[in-house]
Amino acid sequence: MLLRKLVPVFALSLASAGVSADRLKPEDAVEYRQSAFRLMSFQLGVLNPLHRRQAYDDEAFVYRAETLSRLAELALEGFTEDSKGQQSRTQARMWDEREAFETRLREFAETTAQMAERSAAGDSRATRDLFRQTLQSCKSCHDRYRIE
Amino acid sequence: MLLRKLVPVFALSLASAGVSADRLKPEDAVEYRQSAFRLMSFQLGVLNPLHRRQAYDDEAFVYRAETLSRLAELALEGFTEDSKGQQSRTQARMWDEREAFETRLREFAETTAQMAERSAAGDSRATRDLFRQTLQSCKSCHDRYRIE
Repeated sequence: MLLRKLVPVFALSLASAGVSADRLKPEDAVEYRQSAFRLMSFQLGVLNPLHRRQAYDDEAFVYRAETLSRLAELALEGFTEDSKGQQSRTQARMWDEREAFETRLREFAETTAQMAERSAAGDSRATRDLFRQTLQSCKSCHDRYRIE
Repeated sequence: MLLRKLVPVFALSLASAGVSADRLKPEDAVEYRQSAFRLMSFQLGVLNPLHRRQAYDDEAFVYRAETLSRLAELALEGFTEDSKGQQSRTQARMWDEREAFETRLREFAETTAQMAERSAAGDSRATRDLFRQTLQSCKSCHDRYRIE
């Protein structure tokens, strides 16, 4: 099994990374967040069967959970103020509740990061609970903020 | 400065994560890799001005380099065998040299992971050299395998 050498990971919040997404043009911002969500969806597509098999301590579970968390941070960047007028699947309501929305997405990134951590630690029960919380978080956020 | 608690990162190669990208349908595979490349391009858009300012030990540099590495691993997943017939920007040559191509992309992921590590360690000279190597790697791979 090929284990790449550990890379110290600074799971910085975007704020702490001092990075502004201002350089994203409005149309690029939409593509950017859609790209992140598309990749997130695939990570869940890998996690779901692992969850059904209760393979919570599988290395793939750790890897996909960690990736999901990183991608959620990127998705968050794509919701730039000036992309508000762009055609997308974002409900108008999101812009009225932007702070609450961002909090949710940030919490999702936290939950999935914790899930990666618990999975790596072999704590299957906590990993399972966090996975359920993850699915619930996807659903409730889509219900409220995504145009179906 | 908001520093999220450290998440242990298992920068597993995809092979070690035991995950197969077989579940990606051919058309989804193209979208998947394009999504990853799109996000990668933005990470470089953040790294470039940091490079110009020689801000190699900036936390944003670490974060973006690490993100770039992760995304390269995802991009690699999108080059599934049965997506060969799909319309995309991939040169036909890539399919003839697929092993060499995959090696290049894997090396790119390694180089950028090292860059994150050197940046985090405050080793600006090594970080700068790895960044130049990163740009060279983008260019030579695009020249050879991407339709302009």
